[in-house]
Amino acid sequence: MSVTYPSGFRAAATAAGLKPSGTLDLGLLLGEQGTTTAGLFTTNAFAAAPVELSRERLARGGSAARAVIVNSGQANTATGARGAADARAATAAAAEALGLVPDSVLQCSTGVIGEPLHMEQMLHSIPRLAAGLSSDGGEDFARAILTTDTVAKLATADAGPHRVGGCAKGVGMISPNLATMLAFVTTDARVEPGDLRRLANEQLRPRFGAISVDGCSSTNDTFLLFASGAAAEARVSPESAAWAELAEAVGRVGESLVQQLIADGEGATHVLLIEVEGAGSESDARLVGREIANSPLVKAAAFGEDPNPGRIVQAVGASGADVDPARVDVWLGDAHVVAGGVIPPGYFDGDLRARAQLAMKERVVHIAVKLGDGPSRSRALGCDLSHEYVRINGEYTT
Amino acid sequence: MSVTYPSGFRAAATAAGLKPSGTLDLGLLLGEQGTTTAGLFTTNAFAAAPVELSRERLARGGSAARAVIVNSGQANTATGARGAADARAATAAAAEALGLVPDSVLQCSTGVIGEPLHMEQMLHSIPRLAAGLSSDGGEDFARAILTTDTVAKLATADAGPHRVGGCAKGVGMISPNLATMLAFVTTDARVEPGDLRRLANEQLRPRFGAISVDGCSSTNDTFLLFASGAAAEARVSPESAAWAELAEAVGRVGESLVQQLIADGEGATHVLLIEVEGAGSESDARLVGREIANSPLVKAAAFGEDPNPGRIVQAVGASGADVDPARVDVWLGDAHVVAGGVIPPGYFDGDLRARAQLAMKERVVHIAVKLGDGPSRSRALGCDLSHEYVRINGEYTT
Repeated sequence: MSVTYPSGFRAAATAAGLKPSGTLDLGLLLGEQGTTTAGLFTTNAFAAAPVELSRERLARGGSAARAVIVNSGQANTATGARGAADARAATAAAAEALGLVPDSVLQCSTGVIGEPLHMEQMLHSIPRLAAGLSSDGGEDFARAILTTDTVAKLATADAGPHRVGGCAKGVGMISPNLATMLAFVTTDARVEPGDLRRLANEQLRPRFGAISVDGCSSTNDTFLLFASGAAAEARVSPESAAWAELAEAVGRVGESLVQQLIADGEGATHVLLIEVEGAGSESDARLVGREIANSPLVKAAAFGEDPNPGRIVQAVGASGADVDPARVDVWLGDAHVVAGGVIPPGYFDGDLRARAQLAMKERVVHIAVKLGDGPSRSRALGCDLSHEYVRINGEYTT
Repeated sequence: MSVTYPSGFRAAATAAGLKPSGTLDLGLLLGEQGTTTAGLFTTNAFAAAPVELSRERLARGGSAARAVIVNSGQANTATGARGAADARAATAAAAEALGLVPDSVLQCSTGVIGEPLHMEQMLHSIPRLAAGLSSDGGEDFARAILTTDTVAKLATADAGPHRVGGCAKGVGMISPNLATMLAFVTTDARVEPGDLRRLANEQLRPRFGAISVDGCSSTNDTFLLFASGAAAEARVSPESAAWAELAEAVGRVGESLVQQLIADGEGATHVLLIEVEGAGSESDARLVGREIANSPLVKAAAFGEDPNPGRIVQAVGASGADVDPARVDVWLGDAHVVAGGVIPPGYFDGDLRARAQLAMKERVVHIAVKLGDGPSRSRALGCDLSHEYVRINGEYTT
């Protein structure tokens, strides 16, 4: 049911002809009047035109924006002034079709970087798209945003009287010419814009920030959280009893989407779940988690199911975190492969390696790192580096 | 001729039985009395025992250390107190065989992380190794330090009355279980320790710092520069006429070794030469160069010879450097693929793409990035991401 699972939302999708494949490539999501919106955007300096536009409109006050038009096929990145004008024109057309002011419409694009939006097709399709909005449209919407994803990613959760729904796409941070992770989460709770931003920051940012397919943060990454207020009159705020339950449901939807994204990572055959604890600071914990998740050597070892603690210690040491090697412990599954900075002598011929090998054969490979007695921990999600990743990203256009 | 091309140096190598292959795996290099030494070491917090030992001995004054014993097979990393004791014992044995104090002997190791040094074989071989030192031993020495390298890397240069020689190894920053970049450069000029450190910092550090096979900085990286003074009595210092010529020759040897290393990068079919200019600071210039060199998407595109400017702008934007997209220009070879932050409309169907494609087919792919009008530039060397890299690093032990 995706983003239309909560009440107060309608969605639609169409094949506008933006993708050569002729599949669904243009989606529209609308929250009813009073919907509040919060957004998280890429930190890439080369942000796409739709990112700049959406960020600017949300910054003016999240209560105005309650629709988003999303296309796949072209990323509208590195397209200069023409790209900015195209993004404005697309949202203006959607606003007109919906009877809204342009500032009420946000935009996301994903696809080839450097290719201008196919405006003729898009403008032609928008009235039809708006006319087709439906409370059953969430799944089509979720399909319209896909690029090299092999499956649509949908999630729902309940929080007492409230519902939460979401969808996402993205299989490389930039996949073959095709950019981006996009995620949309909706709820029918009534939430003030500031509180909604808090929900996004606390429940979605850390989860989407923890995943990495290839360490390449996209030019188009966008996460939008909408709250329609359609379920009940009562406002949900951090002071209200319903807050914790709602936050938990938003987090659950985010977590489900994140797990689906990483499992569909380009060419991925294994998911890497990296848990770091005992760090002196959150920043150190994150540095270590990300360095392991992004290490080509760790990722290639995961593909080969090779229980190789040397590659973990290399990444820990290279992370830039404040690390005392003598206090570092590492586990692959339940195999304690580094103790006090030392790989046990005999490891390579022994039972311990055999147990670590079993952990590497799991679909989800658990890597735990303890840096010492510090208070901070982190969690990173990655995937392995496979021949298929090289094939997808090396042979795409040739 | 390698490290024994300059006078005042003798080297030897033997097959001590440290590597299962039974090939040369233990090397010794000795400079005559009065030799000065400078070193550069990994910044990885998980530095190997031989790195800690050598760094400590050089810190006590570079004029004492004039020999280095190098083994392949075991990296002696993540080996704790036993590893530290083994490194001391190996250098003590070498010192005894050479009639030197232990502080005069440095050590480098490369091989499996976590495996203790095979001390019995090593100690057994050291007297024979010392007895075999010869001014013709440089090439054997260069072969003894190899791990997954496919060829030995040797270089020589002349600087008036002085000679410079060198050798290096390393094909992944950590390759399959096998660690490390090692480089040894010798000259028969007479150079004070402080001036020698300056030569190392100015001529070798930036060159070896610019290369990346996979962005994984090893636990064992070591570069040593020795000056025997055997060619002439006159000291070469920054104030002397011979300094510039000597520095240029040291730089030339370093550059040759660096080019050989990257060309032999694991699975590499293309070298990426990235030149960044117009940056506001050196740090920004370096960030952009390294982000491009290490981007799995750029590297996979290079393997597929795919002229994909979107991947370059993604990396520029994600680098963390202070970047104004509207001022960014990118060239692939002589094809101007991003102008003022914009990929020219029609790029994907036009002549420009065809020209960029030709640049991607070169063995050395030139990527030039102009960030604006700033004063700083950088140069990074990388290689492509191939199926062979995944195979080497994924299938090594399984």
